[in-house]
Amino acid sequence: MAEINTRILFKSRPSGWVTPENFEAVTADVPAPGPDDVLVRNIYMSLDPYMRGRMNAGKSYISGFELGEVMRAGVVGQVAASNNANFAEGDFVNGMLGWENYSLVPGGNGLTKVDPSLAPLSYYLGVLGMPGMTAYVGLLDIGEPKEGDTVYISAASGAVGQIVGQIARIKGCRVTGSAGSDAKVAYIRDELGFDAAFNYRAVESLDAGLREACPDGIDVYFENVGGEMLDAVLNRINPFARIVACGMISQYNKERPDGVHNLMSLVRCKAKIHGFIVSDHWDRLPAFTRDMGGWLKEGRVKYREDIAQGLENAPATFIGMLKGENFGKQVVQITDDPTR
Amino acid sequence: MAEINTRILFKSRPSGWVTPENFEAVTADVPAPGPDDVLVRNIYMSLDPYMRGRMNAGKSYISGFELGEVMRAGVVGQVAASNNANFAEGDFVNGMLGWENYSLVPGGNGLTKVDPSLAPLSYYLGVLGMPGMTAYVGLLDIGEPKEGDTVYISAASGAVGQIVGQIARIKGCRVTGSAGSDAKVAYIRDELGFDAAFNYRAVESLDAGLREACPDGIDVYFENVGGEMLDAVLNRINPFARIVACGMISQYNKERPDGVHNLMSLVRCKAKIHGFIVSDHWDRLPAFTRDMGGWLKEGRVKYREDIAQGLENAPATFIGMLKGENFGKQVVQITDDPTR
Repeated sequence: MAEINTRILFKSRPSGWVTPENFEAVTADVPAPGPDDVLVRNIYMSLDPYMRGRMNAGKSYISGFELGEVMRAGVVGQVAASNNANFAEGDFVNGMLGWENYSLVPGGNGLTKVDPSLAPLSYYLGVLGMPGMTAYVGLLDIGEPKEGDTVYISAASGAVGQIVGQIARIKGCRVTGSAGSDAKVAYIRDELGFDAAFNYRAVESLDAGLREACPDGIDVYFENVGGEMLDAVLNRINPFARIVACGMISQYNKERPDGVHNLMSLVRCKAKIHGFIVSDHWDRLPAFTRDMGGWLKEGRVKYREDIAQGLENAPATFIGMLKGENFGKQVVQITDDPTR
Repeated sequence: MAEINTRILFKSRPSGWVTPENFEAVTADVPAPGPDDVLVRNIYMSLDPYMRGRMNAGKSYISGFELGEVMRAGVVGQVAASNNANFAEGDFVNGMLGWENYSLVPGGNGLTKVDPSLAPLSYYLGVLGMPGMTAYVGLLDIGEPKEGDTVYISAASGAVGQIVGQIARIKGCRVTGSAGSDAKVAYIRDELGFDAAFNYRAVESLDAGLREACPDGIDVYFENVGGEMLDAVLNRINPFARIVACGMISQYNKERPDGVHNLMSLVRCKAKIHGFIVSDHWDRLPAFTRDMGGWLKEGRVKYREDIAQGLENAPATFIGMLKGENFGKQVVQITDDPTR
């Protein structure tokens, strides 16, 4: 193959905010698959907040990125060449691959086939993939919402938040959320059917926003944000509240995370903050796939993506996502999608 | 009855540290019981950290103290006079009564009889009472310790902490703790059999103390302290750790609680902080009474009290306890104990 493989490497660790200088684009030949290997032409790549943690030297939930190596992400692509009996040229596949045009997958390890007739390819990076399952497991298994509960979601128009809200609605909860622009707020309220929502950048205070959105307090908080937002929520929780700690995006680029002051509320309210990571819950994959597939088909779950174009724009898009500039699940399209 | 009833009233709300001026001692006649009433001569009174919360205007776990009213506490006493068929003069009883020599109990409501032949009377305020059951329910039901787990306990020589450590040992855990003096540390290590312990006032840093005491990380943290200690523990927890939030005594006298910075650790470690209050768990009373009674009898649980003498010293003793000056469960002896 005479084609060029552009690859984005992890050049330096950020201290505080990620900058374009933390990345380096290089070009290489497209690798040739050896025995049992699979070569994937990457079509869509997922950018998610948790990836910021992998850029730190300390431990994150999963192993850190290695300096000088290609950046990694969830990718949907098409098999370009295969010496592996399980994958044929032309198959569509999903896996943790590189920020690059072509990824060589030794032994095809970690690849799973996806069916483009069931949903758009990029959905396998979102509503039908890791973020969707994160929403499903986090809300249902950790949050244990009961009919009539008030569920509050921060970053509610994001990859995970938008799905959490819709599942909570299906389960009969009063669903509330916040997001960082009026357009996002209008979307979750008017398109997704949230019962109340506010723009956290425009309210007088987070406490005032929460008081208006959740006049009866909060039974389940799906925590994507951390810091000040968590502190404000702690003042509004009901007895036996469950705070599902999925992520804390407001804190990832701080040299020192903000202090949270109102934790005594957990004792007073007999409440919990419970962290989780979707990869501990693969046993729930069949239930998730069945339920989410059904809800999408029935139109009970909608899904919004924010698709940036071009691998070369991935670093800037990643930084923008960490700042909340995306509207919906952030994806980067690397090359043409042959199914569209 | 010609005797005088000294009563300590709640005079003013503290802002920050409790001071002697927040209390007022008054004298009154000993009340005469009406129909169905019970009059109790109070012998021992319990002083516990949670009572600080009841002095605030805001909500605590239980209803606040009323200004101008007598202070309340767990009390063991003897029935001095009774018009109630369930209680006879001379019976020993336990209840939420006043900081006073005599409490009038309308209808005998909330009184339970205790058996002085089974244990010293004051034990019903501690190891066999609310603090003991707090330790039992908090560790076993919320902390869910497994054999071989490292359990770490702050305020480990206190009313609850000393019991938690001994139950954890019975359950086959590696038990570690911290306390505020070398004598307390020696006590929990040498007398109670903790595997490791440190004086939090004497270590180079909390992190250093924890690193040495818990080289394999922390699986269960029994949280009595809050603030800096919680932050340091969050950096040492293992995957799936359980933080049992029983109280946060370091924070009760602060105008604004300290910020806790390391909560992202909950996500990374798939861990939880879970608040609880013993009064939601009365269904566990029979199991607690059976187990703790047995352990005491077998000498598998020891129990240390710090008994101050005299009702008039209750305010200063309470303030001292909030500062960690007690060594063991803080009790005030109000009058002679006829069983000793």
